[in-house]
Amino acid sequence: MAKELVFGHQNPDTDAIAAAIAASYYLNQKGMDTEAVALGKTNDETNFVLDYFSVEAPRVIEKADTKEVVLVDHNETAQSVSNIEDLTVTHVFDHHKIDFKTSSPLFYHAEALGSTSTILYGFFKKDGIEIPKKIAGLMLSGLISDTLLLKSPTTTNVDRDVIGKLASIAGVDDVNAYGLNLLKAGTNLSKKSEQD
Amino acid sequence: MAKELVFGHQNPDTDAIAAAIAASYYLNQKGMDTEAVALGKTNDETNFVLDYFSVEAPRVIEKADTKEVVLVDHNETAQSVSNIEDLTVTHVFDHHKIDFKTSSPLFYHAEALGSTSTILYGFFKKDGIEIPKKIAGLMLSGLISDTLLLKSPTTTNVDRDVIGKLASIAGVDDVNAYGLNLLKAGTNLSKKSEQD
Ligand SMILES: [Mn+2]
Ligand SMILES: [Mn+2]
Ligand SMILES: [Mn+2]
Ligand SMILES: [Mn+2]
Repeated sequence: MAKELVFGHQNPDTDAIAAAIAASYYLNQKGMDTEAVALGKTNDETNFVLDYFSVEAPRVIEKADTKEVVLVDHNETAQSVSNIEDLTVTHVFDHHKIDFKTSSPLFYHAEALGSTSTILYGFFKKDGIEIPKKIAGLMLSGLISDTLLLKSPTTTNVDRDVIGKLASIAGVDDVNAYGLNLLKAGTNLSKKSEQD
Repeated sequence: MAKELVFGHQNPDTDAIAAAIAASYYLNQKGMDTEAVALGKTNDETNFVLDYFSVEAPRVIEKADTKEVVLVDHNETAQSVSNIEDLTVTHVFDHHKIDFKTSSPLFYHAEALGSTSTILYGFFKKDGIEIPKKIAGLMLSGLISDTLLLKSPTTTNVDRDVIGKLASIAGVDDVNAYGLNLLKAGTNLSKKSEQD
């Protein structure tokens, strides 16, 4: 069993799942021993993404059974794992407003960018760690999902730059077409039309 | 007047002053318009450092008169500027435990390293921004002060690596001798012997 679990918020969206998998891979490359897990079942949009890049959904946990954990795509206790108060958070990678309190120093990195996936791209780059093709696909999808294909007001120039870099590593030639399919997979519309 | 003020905690120590000056310089190189200030008079140790590297003490403020501010070497409201609740924090660079709440996303970087100066060295390096000799001297001093010349239990391998790099940029050949003089300047012992 890994020494630390890495997870996004409850009711995980695509960025929460992608960032957990990407951060776990990144930290393991840096010598840590982590496993990406999820605080709930993946949604329809994320299932489309996992299918597309042939990646298994992370296992769903109710409680963390490691003493130390890594939070991605959230920081607030109410959005985290049920036993968070008993755990030590060693790292946070996030892009949300902060409501966070700890009793010891830790690694905490937040930036007001469109997605946690965008932030993690910067860490891979800074440390010269290659992003595997499938993980780049997940990160691309987290970025597309959170920014609604660069249309949301939270979109920054960094996101506009990183989306092409991730698409290229992931081998996604038509980001627009892929992004629209991804967003459609998450709407009720697509559910209805599949059922009809 | 600068658009944003950058400051360390009340009762500033050498790392709080050094990190404010270094972070302000770093952010200005990145295109921001900031000024380093202090939330109190510099202490004897810091005065020794400022003297040694011929740097003026940052001006002391009671309240911040910019809407946006950058916090270094602290994050908790009780340690910050008196009107912090009315301000927007855009960046935090720190190495302490966290007790922080905001209403919007921001840039927040904390690591469990020996000093905020050590953390800032990493940002200069990552972005390929050259550290001016005098600022390297201040950062070296912040690192020495916080880690008691690498003797404190908060000292990490990163600090052990960065101290030599900063000393070399600052032109300090004998770090040990310089560090002992710095620490002595901060003790009552040195005050007494000067008076006697
Ligand atoms: Mn999310
Ligand atoms: Mn997100
Ligand atoms: Mn301090
Ligand atoms: Mn400090």
